[in-house]
Amino acid sequence: MILRIDRLQTQLPPPSDPDPVGASAVQELLGGKFGEMSTFMNYTYQSFNFRNRQGARPFYDLVASIAAEEFGHIELVSAAINTMLTGAAEGEPGTAGALDSVKGTRNTQQFIAGGAATLVQDSNGKPWNGDYVFSSGDLIEDLTHNFFLETGARNNKLKVYEMVEHPAARALTGYLLVRGGVHQVAYARALENLTGANLTKLFPSPRIPTEKIPECQPHIERGEHLKLYRFSPSDFQEIAAVFNGPHPETGEELRIAEEIQPEGVPPFDLPSQPAVFAPGPEPEEIAEIAASLRQAAGLPKNPTGVVANNGGNGVMKKVKDAVT
Amino acid sequence: MILRIDRLQTQLPPPSDPDPVGASAVQELLGGKFGEMSTFMNYTYQSFNFRNRQGARPFYDLVASIAAEEFGHIELVSAAINTMLTGAAEGEPGTAGALDSVKGTRNTQQFIAGGAATLVQDSNGKPWNGDYVFSSGDLIEDLTHNFFLETGARNNKLKVYEMVEHPAARALTGYLLVRGGVHQVAYARALENLTGANLTKLFPSPRIPTEKIPECQPHIERGEHLKLYRFSPSDFQEIAAVFNGPHPETGEELRIAEEIQPEGVPPFDLPSQPAVFAPGPEPEEIAEIAASLRQAAGLPKNPTGVVANNGGNGVMKKVKDAVT
Amino acid sequence: MILRIDRLQTQLPPPSDPDPVGASAVQELLGGKFGEMSTFMNYTYQSFNFRNRQGARPFYDLVASIAAEEFGHIELVSAAINTMLTGAAEGEPGTAGALDSVKGTRNTQQFIAGGAATLVQDSNGKPWNGDYVFSSGDLIEDLTHNFFLETGARNNKLKVYEMVEHPAARALTGYLLVRGGVHQVAYARALENLTGANLTKLFPSPRIPTEKIPECQPHIERGEHLKLYRFSPSDFQEIAAVFNGPHPETGEELRIAEEIQPEGVPPFDLPSQPAVFAPGPEPEEIAEIAASLRQAAGLPKNPTGVVANNGGNGVMKKVKDAVT
Amino acid sequence: MILRIDRLQTQLPPPSDPDPVGASAVQELLGGKFGEMSTFMNYTYQSFNFRNRQGARPFYDLVASIAAEEFGHIELVSAAINTMLTGAAEGEPGTAGALDSVKGTRNTQQFIAGGAATLVQDSNGKPWNGDYVFSSGDLIEDLTHNFFLETGARNNKLKVYEMVEHPAARALTGYLLVRGGVHQVAYARALENLTGANLTKLFPSPRIPTEKIPECQPHIERGEHLKLYRFSPSDFQEIAAVFNGPHPETGEELRIAEEIQPEGVPPFDLPSQPAVFAPGPEPEEIAEIAASLRQAAGLPKNPTGVVANNGGNGVMKKVKDAVT
Amino acid sequence: MILRIDRLQTQLPPPSDPDPVGASAVQELLGGKFGEMSTFMNYTYQSFNFRNRQGARPFYDLVASIAAEEFGHIELVSAAINTMLTGAAEGEPGTAGALDSVKGTRNTQQFIAGGAATLVQDSNGKPWNGDYVFSSGDLIEDLTHNFFLETGARNNKLKVYEMVEHPAARALTGYLLVRGGVHQVAYARALENLTGANLTKLFPSPRIPTEKIPECQPHIERGEHLKLYRFSPSDFQEIAAVFNGPHPETGEELRIAEEIQPEGVPPFDLPSQPAVFAPGPEPEEIAEIAASLRQAAGLPKNPTGVVANNGGNGVMKKVKDAVT
Amino acid sequence: MILRIDRLQTQLPPPSDPDPVGASAVQELLGGKFGEMSTFMNYTYQSFNFRNRQGARPFYDLVASIAAEEFGHIELVSAAINTMLTGAAEGEPGTAGALDSVKGTRNTQQFIAGGAATLVQDSNGKPWNGDYVFSSGDLIEDLTHNFFLETGARNNKLKVYEMVEHPAARALTGYLLVRGGVHQVAYARALENLTGANLTKLFPSPRIPTEKIPECQPHIERGEHLKLYRFSPSDFQEIAAVFNGPHPETGEELRIAEEIQPEGVPPFDLPSQPAVFAPGPEPEEIAEIAASLRQAAGLPKNPTGVVANNGGNGVMKKVKDAVT
Repeated sequence: MILRIDRLQTQLPPPSDPDPVGASAVQELLGGKFGEMSTFMNYTYQSFNFRNRQGARPFYDLVASIAAEEFGHIELVSAAINTMLTGAAEGEPGTAGALDSVKGTRNTQQFIAGGAATLVQDSNGKPWNGDYVFSSGDLIEDLTHNFFLETGARNNKLKVYEMVEHPAARALTGYLLVRGGVHQVAYARALENLTGANLTKLFPSPRIPTEKIPECQPHIERGEHLKLYRFSPSDFQEIAAVFNGPHPETGEELRIAEEIQPEGVPPFDLPSQPAVFAPGPEPEEIAEIAASLRQAAGLPKNPTGVVANNGGNGVMKKVKDAVT
Repeated sequence: MILRIDRLQTQLPPPSDPDPVGASAVQELLGGKFGEMSTFMNYTYQSFNFRNRQGARPFYDLVASIAAEEFGHIELVSAAINTMLTGAAEGEPGTAGALDSVKGTRNTQQFIAGGAATLVQDSNGKPWNGDYVFSSGDLIEDLTHNFFLETGARNNKLKVYEMVEHPAARALTGYLLVRGGVHQVAYARALENLTGANLTKLFPSPRIPTEKIPECQPHIERGEHLKLYRFSPSDFQEIAAVFNGPHPETGEELRIAEEIQPEGVPPFDLPSQPAVFAPGPEPEEIAEIAASLRQAAGLPKNPTGVVANNGGNGVMKKVKDAVT
Repeated sequence: MILRIDRLQTQLPPPSDPDPVGASAVQELLGGKFGEMSTFMNYTYQSFNFRNRQGARPFYDLVASIAAEEFGHIELVSAAINTMLTGAAEGEPGTAGALDSVKGTRNTQQFIAGGAATLVQDSNGKPWNGDYVFSSGDLIEDLTHNFFLETGARNNKLKVYEMVEHPAARALTGYLLVRGGVHQVAYARALENLTGANLTKLFPSPRIPTEKIPECQPHIERGEHLKLYRFSPSDFQEIAAVFNGPHPETGEELRIAEEIQPEGVPPFDLPSQPAVFAPGPEPEEIAEIAASLRQAAGLPKNPTGVVANNGGNGVMKKVKDAVT
Repeated sequence: MILRIDRLQTQLPPPSDPDPVGASAVQELLGGKFGEMSTFMNYTYQSFNFRNRQGARPFYDLVASIAAEEFGHIELVSAAINTMLTGAAEGEPGTAGALDSVKGTRNTQQFIAGGAATLVQDSNGKPWNGDYVFSSGDLIEDLTHNFFLETGARNNKLKVYEMVEHPAARALTGYLLVRGGVHQVAYARALENLTGANLTKLFPSPRIPTEKIPECQPHIERGEHLKLYRFSPSDFQEIAAVFNGPHPETGEELRIAEEIQPEGVPPFDLPSQPAVFAPGPEPEEIAEIAASLRQAAGLPKNPTGVVANNGGNGVMKKVKDAVT
Repeated sequence: MILRIDRLQTQLPPPSDPDPVGASAVQELLGGKFGEMSTFMNYTYQSFNFRNRQGARPFYDLVASIAAEEFGHIELVSAAINTMLTGAAEGEPGTAGALDSVKGTRNTQQFIAGGAATLVQDSNGKPWNGDYVFSSGDLIEDLTHNFFLETGARNNKLKVYEMVEHPAARALTGYLLVRGGVHQVAYARALENLTGANLTKLFPSPRIPTEKIPECQPHIERGEHLKLYRFSPSDFQEIAAVFNGPHPETGEELRIAEEIQPEGVPPFDLPSQPAVFAPGPEPEEIAEIAASLRQAAGLPKNPTGVVANNGGNGVMKKVKDAVT
Repeated sequence: MILRIDRLQTQLPPPSDPDPVGASAVQELLGGKFGEMSTFMNYTYQSFNFRNRQGARPFYDLVASIAAEEFGHIELVSAAINTMLTGAAEGEPGTAGALDSVKGTRNTQQFIAGGAATLVQDSNGKPWNGDYVFSSGDLIEDLTHNFFLETGARNNKLKVYEMVEHPAARALTGYLLVRGGVHQVAYARALENLTGANLTKLFPSPRIPTEKIPECQPHIERGEHLKLYRFSPSDFQEIAAVFNGPHPETGEELRIAEEIQPEGVPPFDLPSQPAVFAPGPEPEEIAEIAASLRQAAGLPKNPTGVVANNGGNGVMKKVKDAVT
């Protein structure tokens, strides 16, 4: 079971200039073979399929807990993509030419199938599929896979970092490189504990230390490169048994965070994109219905949700206006 | 972000006679077009892609919160499949003929690629893919989709209930039919609140009321057919604005559960299946390593995890032995 | 544009003993690379994409007209599959074990996704896809492809004939082998007319003359191996310019049928399969609603459709009862 | 069985400036999950799989008859795509650089695999597949699906209308929006008749009335938004029992057309695109062969086919020349 | 470029009792994610994509040379599958029921699409696809991948060994386990040489030493677990720079074979399977044509090819007869 | 079994201006339905699946031997793609914007998944799959398929020749058109020998003789359009029995080459692309390790491999520098 906390693991910038072509590249980090759907689903199903959990508890806890973090990563990548698409479909709905500016974009389905939104696809428009999940049941193999998966994921993140200069993409990859590095270390440590094989010698791979990347620095400064969270109110205590020792690049001590999960930040409430009917029908009409439903249910008059760009008057405003 | 609670939403029976052919049919409820991967991922991505959340808060909360419940459903279906596969691969590892009994099973990859374990596939062995996710951004369309998706899902659940008599499959489908029914109602109510369209008149579809199904009864008795959980420590308060009124079949009042999530039950710790190296290498060897890692980390001597078949001596025992 | 005539091109036997495993093999002739979806869609899209139609009119007419016949073939294969599945899902709906007899069938989706019905898949459960369509625009290449496609299709039909002894499968393949042979000849003749290449020398391929197959005889006796229909009220007159000369196996003269299309036969109205909710909700309830809708619309009291097993009292009866 | 009439359901403009990038977007309406292949194939297979046809005759007739109309839609979308590609591949065949202008187009296979022609793919180049067909056998579910499918299709049509300003794309989407709207209404009415659920309250969805779209007006003026055709010489009489009552947007009375099918218009005979060998080999050579085959078969000297740009001298001329 | 030697790398037994269900499982070793198509294609494309070959020559030579060996593995797996299918389709061609015995087999396409023959699919009938190829260009990543791929491949081989007792399957897996082990070691050594990481500590994985498997023994006795072949007349000399040191399981010294490639054995000439038209048309007719073509070309009267079951009279005889 | 010779079948130009968009089009010739993966794999599996080899020896030898040549073609296409991508990713690794110039390229995975390298995909980014392999076992059908496959392949090659003006693409297609033509003739001759059908009359198709294409001329002058190589040290002697008679376009005599295989040329050693970590980690570091491994193994100090741009000092230099 999961509980959901309506916050992003890290801050992304608000929408600025739209970048649909860049957003199509960022899709690789969502639905690519080495994207976050793959990390999320691999660890999730490995934990579901884990036999002899009590006997191998520290390893089960590790895989199950990292799986939980990865949900936050598909959420973050989606938020980045949606941010980058914001502003690209603000034309008059139902009007010829309203989407003309994205006719030549690399992934038209972000606008035709979606409302200027994330798809469960890679950067070439191929859907993610269950074939990307490896779950053999053999602990050494699964951990070897996970180490390799994080290595490939790190490579892809670096490439997208180099390819897409939109602020949301850079903030995203800066964060994911740091956290992905932690997972690489975690799986290497697990294998070392099980077999003595020192996979940390393969670090970093590709050979770009995160300290060379400006967007990684705020997270490194907060020690995010050194700690695992449990992501559970009371379970997964035994990750501490595996995740310890020195960080292979910096020598600092690895540790378990005291907080259950990162504090996180409220997401931006991304504004309507009328030309793609997102949301439809009329936002104002929906807002009115919502208000009266709240009232009928005895809930507060104003929306109870917390968003980064919460106005003071209970009326949704366009983010872009708000921040400019 | 999510937190993970290491409990199943409902009790499944412990392993008994293995049923690999039945397990291949149950895969439809995991990775089929109308399986739980589809419900989980559709609502998850719709919530990620939701624009104007504040304006449409009750609807956002509804979709986001049901998404969280669906994680528990992929977990349950996996647990059922793994339960049904337990005992099918207990032969001597590395021995010719050890898996002879499953040579003719419908999905050989459960044993070749997996360790007698769930795959992210449907009942015909086709991987789930991201193309099954619908997220248009238009609220009416997305809710219409979700209503239809739950309808198809209910149909598939009924078929699997009829097709597979293994106790785990029956317990699974009994529970999912009840909870899926709640989601059908929730989306119908959302559409009714938005537009006045009375989709509850389509109920139930297929025309089998859950009260006719014995395996649904314990859940109905606990009122599980009437309530939504928030599945969040503090978010998603506004589901109460949408989910209310009479149940379309029974007339009872729909309500929001007081607890954040169902209490749930600890999962069975499914025993090793040596012939498929799950877990490998030797379970005892892993257990020993785990124990010494725990000790080194200052953790309790015995595993801290809670499982349904927790022994008193800290040593994993085969579930089947335990229950027979 | 098309008009639809609610008749099958040839008679299939009524349902008898169900044969779900056989039906999964027959799916190859529907959704396989060389199935009727492929012939239908290849010729259809080649006709849509045909440039310079006036200049190449006889060839356009040939491709466009055979495309129309192929619709009748996907209809026939579907009818055969549905016939073979009839009787396999008659158990009590919503009852555990009602579908137990098909738990081990090769294609469970015929029952889980469908109502004991045809899927758009091949015999291994893989969906037909648009990649199977070849349409280069170069007339010689397209005709070479079509000749090859019919050759592969003939091979598959023979294999299914050998593999599945259910009466519906044998009646189906007997008919399709004869008509597919006509199409092979037609494309060979087209190429011969264009280039002088004598592809008829490759006949028959595989080397089984249809006169050796009992189920082909009724059709050969009616001359169905010698004629093309126009399948159009007034178009496609110029097929006569291409389809003529002697049949490569028998030496008889090829000819254009005087009738626009085969007379055909009304289909059997296949009975309900309650355990798969086909049709759902209650057939009787639907029948009643239908009757009153007819009345309100000023239509005859009894159903106006013609089916092979039309009763005299306007009430649907189970086919199997009727014929036994 | 079908008969084919060599006419388009509505007039499209002749080729003008080519727009390959736009044509790649229009592919979504052909081979996308919500494209016309999906509507055509869903209703076709639902009609093939329909059990208890006599009992549910009005509903069978409705689905079977709309299926027939949808063939005309895949034909129309193809015609639009081919029109938009005309002129993009007129260079000298076999010459380096002849296709240089489309090297960067979004879907290169339209030129490499095809002859400047339609593919059975979506706007991201993914082939249509049989997995998009839903056919459960449960009438309520199938109709709910169809209503939802038409809703999604309408959304996609609006998006393509906004995205692609080429005259052929606008004429296409103007027509399809009107006819798709009729089908949405038809399925909503069917569900209302069966269950009382008033799905027409969801109209229109997305919230753009067709009367706001200039390209829809000629069709609305002819009443095309109010009527269903039977698309059959004598079958499908009972659609009248379902399709009646007021139009949900305009209140006008729905009705069955007196004509069997729309009169339609002859298609443009699209000119050769030599750089892609469409048609190949030499058009003139083919025309000569065709003429002598006609003569040998006792057919008229000139092509008998009727095309929009029929010349008076029996010689194919380039459409673009003819219309400029 | 390659040269082809018409010999198998190791001896497989001649056909005996057919085992189509077993053959469908063996397909995993051909077209599965961890099958030999994957090893062959991964190393082949990594060698094609290798930049800076001179600088990294020993590593390039290693990957390029192992790629060449893997061709022999897809050949061997195919030979095993075809051997297992021999005898399953010997009925009278074109006769109803001739293939009845394989109607229920797991992979009907082996007989419908193929002539009792290998498909490029996995054990669930899913085609191998190019997505299984990893080629990042980063040497450490590619080698890590290859090590992991061989680990997964070893696991799958063990599973198939356990699952399928047909002599051809056992001979196949016995050989492949030994050779796959060599490749695992080779990639581990390459990584160790590059980084110092001691991946050999993960050995063996799964934890079944090949010395426990009887079918591995003849190969181990010949030292096949210790040596790499260059598989090239003059290239790939530098594999010696990487592949050396002690074997991680036995401590014996790794070495480069003196012979360029294993001597190999001529394949069995598998007999006709008439019911699937393999080969068609009549074998005797083909043999006669072949003989006269040979004569006309001044070649020897008898076939020049060498096969394991070469008769003395130039006439193909059924293998099964020959060996029984 | 194969032996590998580290040479390309023909000379390609060294890298010049990068052309990633062109390279994405050339992918069609690698992983498209009619690309070289298809020719390679079709003939390879047909040879593996060939029954009654002795009886049909000349035909077996033909298919098996052409299969070997096709390996050289996937190698050549890859070399061309990699050449075209060289220079596109030379920026500073790990730096934002280093890959900005390829953000809008048609196939981003060439840079994200790969190191500026070939993928096993077609020009729309769809992976090649095993479904493209046809291997029926019926000799006439397989040869008909192969003839058709070569026809489609020739068409695709011509289209790519027209579309992509990069020198590497033109050199590639010039060569492949000549060799593909030889294969078309070979399969036509095989069919003629078996059946008398004169498929050579379909030549050339599309109707562009290779003598009109400048890039074909050097190869025609060397007689490459007339000869088959055996591609085997001692096998496949009997291709001479099938491949003889006059060339259908020029009337010159077809012949078997005296050399086993074309002499070929050493490949260019393509330079590092640092921004995509190909190769990683540091090229210089790898070179050093390689040198000391060579030394330890008693190999020559300098790399033993032969490349087109071999420097005299044992140090890899950038090709582009070398040739400018």
